[in-house]
Amino acid sequence: METIASKDNPRIRAYAKLSSQKKARTASGKFVLEGVKLLEEAVRSKVEVESVFITQECLDSGRKQLSVLDSLSDQIYLVSGAAEQRLSQSQSPQGIYAVCKIPDNRPQFNGTGKFLGLWDVQDPGNVGTMIRTADALGFDGVVLSRGCCDLYNLKTIRAAMGSLFRMPLLQTDMAEFLAAHRELHSFASVVDQSAPKLPDIHFPDSSIILIGNEGNGLSSEQAGCCEQRLTIPMAGNAESFNAAMAATILMWELMKNE
Amino acid sequence: METIASKDNPRIRAYAKLSSQKKARTASGKFVLEGVKLLEEAVRSKVEVESVFITQECLDSGRKQLSVLDSLSDQIYLVSGAAEQRLSQSQSPQGIYAVCKIPDNRPQFNGTGKFLGLWDVQDPGNVGTMIRTADALGFDGVVLSRGCCDLYNLKTIRAAMGSLFRMPLLQTDMAEFLAAHRELHSFASVVDQSAPKLPDIHFPDSSIILIGNEGNGLSSEQAGCCEQRLTIPMAGNAESFNAAMAATILMWELMKNE
Repeated sequence: METIASKDNPRIRAYAKLSSQKKARTASGKFVLEGVKLLEEAVRSKVEVESVFITQECLDSGRKQLSVLDSLSDQIYLVSGAAEQRLSQSQSPQGIYAVCKIPDNRPQFNGTGKFLGLWDVQDPGNVGTMIRTADALGFDGVVLSRGCCDLYNLKTIRAAMGSLFRMPLLQTDMAEFLAAHRELHSFASVVDQSAPKLPDIHFPDSSIILIGNEGNGLSSEQAGCCEQRLTIPMAGNAESFNAAMAATILMWELMKNE
Repeated sequence: METIASKDNPRIRAYAKLSSQKKARTASGKFVLEGVKLLEEAVRSKVEVESVFITQECLDSGRKQLSVLDSLSDQIYLVSGAAEQRLSQSQSPQGIYAVCKIPDNRPQFNGTGKFLGLWDVQDPGNVGTMIRTADALGFDGVVLSRGCCDLYNLKTIRAAMGSLFRMPLLQTDMAEFLAAHRELHSFASVVDQSAPKLPDIHFPDSSIILIGNEGNGLSSEQAGCCEQRLTIPMAGNAESFNAAMAATILMWELMKNE
């Protein structure tokens, strides 16, 4: 196992760049993650791991989860505390970091399936949570507009808890996508109690539910790109649901509607 | 309007203490908030505002929302930039800050109603979001265990988006509470696909749904304090739902079950 002592080592610098810059991730097709659990999830989902950085302390901890490292032995580097400082974005570093290839796992649109569409959803935690929920509810894919946050920043990865490595994902121009996939029945989630309400909506076999930006929701132009509008009835005084909560209720109803 | 120039002014120091220390909030029965929107929500919900700190810049902005200040004129202090630095916890400060009394708005348990119970839920954003969702779905109250995060820290207040000022809330010993309220039908949300599954659950008129800690869920001891267990069916590969997502689906089903 090669040892890296300096925080200025080129591999450490490359990791830090991938960690902080979307541009670097897009250009290289790589992303980074930290923590045993996420690394395990990545390996289990057959994400290609390019290199792993580990501290002596983490190695010594002898946690059995580290068996994941056996299959990666050529790509492991032992890092000093100084080097780790440049790797970690976490308040409680676990001493293990990896550079991985962005998986190319696109949704299949073939006249059937349940999809979630995120249009300019910008909070990485929200996006990650919604992908996790889509995974738990057995959705077939998530389509994201180009105005959504970058999928492979650490906050999205953490909130998705491994679902980012499993769920088929496509980031594209949403208006063009919807126009090109008319076989997909599209539902715009709006905050307008005059719109057709859940749970009285029938979702056809091939459906996508669109969720808008956290602050503004879907614009009328965006909603106009969809086949139908729908809303969640509200009984209380809150002005609206948080975007992730709305997506959860909608996905749950779509899942039940099969 | 009195002017405060120094960041060491006693009122500024008292605000900072209330902002950072749960102990100070509990001892005084006061909390702090920042931003025009939250202050408006507080006033609209008849939360007692003790004092408001505002910057000249914010005053000059002439935003019409500031009409909320008319009713508070005696309690407003103009603060310098230096003093504001000690007040703001936000990355984009809005220049308006308030000290308020913690509302005493407890849920009524009289044999009817829909309640959410949070048992050792520790993330302030999760707790705030769940209170907001409970509000939007017309719930009658939220009961929190003593092991939950403090309700009046800024992150909870922000995530709840005003619902914290409207929703009846009780923070108490949860096991004792459940034992003392046997007329309330209690449902423990567990991650165990052998437990009775939504949506095949009938919720009686007076029901409380219990959600456990984000990392561990409800312990078997905690679940044992409840009348019945239930779970959300999972179709995909995710190990579990995020606590707030699970709470959302459960509250939605309880709301529909009326």
